Amino acid sequence: MAKDQEFVKDIANIDEDFATWYTDVVRKADLADYTDTKGCVAIKPYGYAIWENIKNYADKEFKETGIQNVYFPLLIPESLLQKEKDHVEGFAPEVAFVTEAGGEKLEEKLCIRPTSETMFSTLYSKWLKSWRDLPMEYNQWCSVLRWEKETRPFLRSREFLWQEGHTIHETEKEAIERTQKMLEIYAKIIEDLLAIPVLKGKKTEKEKFSGAEATYTVETLTRDGRALQSGTSHYFGQNFTKPFEIKFQNREGKEEYAYQTSWGISTRLIGALIMAHGDQRGLKLPPKVAPIQVKIIPIAMHKEGVLEKAEELRKELKEEFRVEVDSRDQVSPGFKFNECELKGIPVRIEIGPRDIENGKCILVRRDNLEKREIELKNIKQEIKQELENIQSNMYKICEKRLEDKIAEAKTLEEFETKINQNQGYIKAMWCGNEECENKIKEKTGAHSRCIPFEQEKIGNNCVCCGKPAEQMVIWGRQY
Amino acid sequence: MAKDQEFVKDIANIDEDFATWYTDVVRKADLADYTDTKGCVAIKPYGYAIWENIKNYADKEFKETGIQNVYFPLLIPESLLQKEKDHVEGFAPEVAFVTEAGGEKLEEKLCIRPTSETMFSTLYSKWLKSWRDLPMEYNQWCSVLRWEKETRPFLRSREFLWQEGHTIHETEKEAIERTQKMLEIYAKIIEDLLAIPVLKGKKTEKEKFSGAEATYTVETLTRDGRALQSGTSHYFGQNFTKPFEIKFQNREGKEEYAYQTSWGISTRLIGALIMAHGDQRGLKLPPKVAPIQVKIIPIAMHKEGVLEKAEELRKELKEEFRVEVDSRDQVSPGFKFNECELKGIPVRIEIGPRDIENGKCILVRRDNLEKREIELKNIKQEIKQELENIQSNMYKICEKRLEDKIAEAKTLEEFETKINQNQGYIKAMWCGNEECENKIKEKTGAHSRCIPFEQEKIGNNCVCCGKPAEQMVIWGRQY
Repeated sequence: MAKDQEFVKDIANIDEDFATWYTDVVRKADLADYTDTKGCVAIKPYGYAIWENIKNYADKEFKETGIQNVYFPLLIPESLLQKEKDHVEGFAPEVAFVTEAGGEKLEEKLCIRPTSETMFSTLYSKWLKSWRDLPMEYNQWCSVLRWEKETRPFLRSREFLWQEGHTIHETEKEAIERTQKMLEIYAKIIEDLLAIPVLKGKKTEKEKFSGAEATYTVETLTRDGRALQSGTSHYFGQNFTKPFEIKFQNREGKEEYAYQTSWGISTRLIGALIMAHGDQRGLKLPPKVAPIQVKIIPIAMHKEGVLEKAEELRKELKEEFRVEVDSRDQVSPGFKFNECELKGIPVRIEIGPRDIENGKCILVRRDNLEKREIELKNIKQEIKQELENIQSNMYKICEKRLEDKIAEAKTLEEFETKINQNQGYIKAMWCGNEECENKIKEKTGAHSRCIPFEQEKIGNNCVCCGKPAEQMVIWGRQY
Repeated sequence: MAKDQEFVKDIANIDEDFATWYTDVVRKADLADYTDTKGCVAIKPYGYAIWENIKNYADKEFKETGIQNVYFPLLIPESLLQKEKDHVEGFAPEVAFVTEAGGEKLEEKLCIRPTSETMFSTLYSKWLKSWRDLPMEYNQWCSVLRWEKETRPFLRSREFLWQEGHTIHETEKEAIERTQKMLEIYAKIIEDLLAIPVLKGKKTEKEKFSGAEATYTVETLTRDGRALQSGTSHYFGQNFTKPFEIKFQNREGKEEYAYQTSWGISTRLIGALIMAHGDQRGLKLPPKVAPIQVKIIPIAMHKEGVLEKAEELRKELKEEFRVEVDSRDQVSPGFKFNECELKGIPVRIEIGPRDIENGKCILVRRDNLEKREIELKNIKQEIKQELENIQSNMYKICEKRLEDKIAEAKTLEEFETKINQNQGYIKAMWCGNEECENKIKEKTGAHSRCIPFEQEKIGNNCVCCGKPAEQMVIWGRQY
């Protein structure tokens, strides 16, 4: 028993110290580990398998809408980065530079991409000739570097994995549609695959991407009521196409600048998963994204026929599910149960000699820890049904939390009281002035998350200055 | 007609200037383009789609043998790189260093990985405790940087995409088996997917990987008779596990150092593909790896029903094949035919009003340019059969070339004469002395390619010094 409790003992209390609980789970569930490169983690097989599932799902969605994958250089000459004023101001402080290579000092510093608008823009400018070449809609799966001061595995890392899509279009309308289409796909990935409901909306001027005309965002909520920006889609208008001279001959034979977008999701989604679903026992993975959906644990393994039966079940299930048998003999079944829970495996099957005799086994759900006996002859249908139940139950729990943690505020005092009492989102009217946005942040610690697409009229006046306000904004403290 | 011939006109003559022909094809067939980052190319959608097909095939093969994917940091502290003497000597001259980041000068320089033995070793040393943890068999798909002086798209680029597998094992035997297993998988990828026969063998001491105990290689041959190292698998013994202290408690309870391997293939395989199969018309892709297997070209497109029929065929074929319709109206069918050939699309279907009337269409094979009429009702079976024929015919052509371009030599004069007359591989006995290896290179321009697994006794004496020799080595000029 002492051994069985080791897992939980080593994880910080989720209600008292959520931040430490998070890093404990990342390491104990074997998702990632720290490395000798400060601020950069090693993503281990279990963590990477989650990323592969996200990537495969997303990549298929992208390609169905005509996106094509490419790979462009990691290193960008400093002069390219400087072509768009807002962009360089936003990113320069976080950039890492290569100054020596091949035994020599470089004439021009090369920056490691923090994002690739500048590289894509230079190449698009070289390739684009006529309206017939449009749209060009390319995406790359790669890593980027941003020299963050404070880091946290998956959530904020100096190097992280992501996809960055960059498109150019003939018209403003078409570009805006692509921006919105990608936001819809991101919402689908997060809601359908990761079982986390999102808020969708537009970022304020202050929070938008450096160089963008408009940034759209999908926001998720953590168990402790903080907001996580989980995917963004940017409309650039002609902000980059003009300095980078991305122009084409239009249908009337005249020269025109193209309209541009970019959009990205990253391994931060793994952080969102952990923080939305986890509990004191560890990770809790929605079946659709879980690298292992079913773990079979043989009981009294040394008894004749038990291991064989477990292996037989695995073979029966493996065409339909991602399934494994835990046949280690150096640890007890209790240890294996705990590890299964720590790793968030959706369904656990326990099978021992008596079960085999009775043609039965025990099925345990990770989401609610419910345990029941099932007939071996129905095992496939039972598991299929339970995986669906778990996926939708996990979504519902997050949906309920989202409802419970959205409050309205009409004054700054009400805002402060409510966010302190029940940390989460606050809906409040805003005049559109950045000064108010800054003051709200100072007072409450909350950033504007988005101007939601679904607007409500909570009042007529700005929650901060009291002046007339048209926009409802959703605010929240963030990771 | 003038327009139709533009493609060929713009490509250098393959027999007179193979090197320029190569870069012409890379750019004209839209595989890759140069960028503002010297020595680094942008891999375009068509080139990247080939890489995705290679990657998906390889990744599946790896996983079936128990390999797990991970992602470890791009940046490696300089001190880590220096832990294994031979390794740092081999790679240091080619390394790129980050010296500034986040607006500050770094205390310790960070190198961009040229390969990740050192990073994997540090982490394995942290994670490994007992023999029960072994083997650890991880792989990552990523990019690496090597500051080459002369570059050529895909073949030798400062940044390139690859996979690097790194494994540690309980015994020497198991590690050597993994090294060999990976070489077999590489041979399968190249022969089965890319339709290029390989030579398999061991590298000489001089040509082996910096820090390895032994390097195994798969070598391919280009149309102009040069050798391309196309995949390598290294056995390290304990060369890294000792300095990095990768040790474990063995079955007897004693501390022991693990045995290690690493292995990789890269986007260089795209170079191998182009150089093995291409002809004066451009690229020639084996069906299994071709991003587009079938291109449907409607003839007299403006006539009623033609485009509709082409689209109907596409829908019929798309479940089984990677198929596209070229419905552009600004270029002629002749232009489209040439482009199809330039891009190496295995099968082209031409369909016009008269064909539709007769329930027929024209099928053209890219490999031998054979053209024949087929019945529309049999189109699926016909295409399936032809794709198989093309795949095996392309392999046979390369196999024939390999036979024609392997010669034996008993003296250095014979070696020189033969390689100058008919550039290709030379089989010759070798005493094992590096001085002879160097002298052969000086005299003939040929490097040792491998000590093939299938040895033949061509003579009793070293081709260079005439002393007794046991080993037959295969030599060749390389890209």
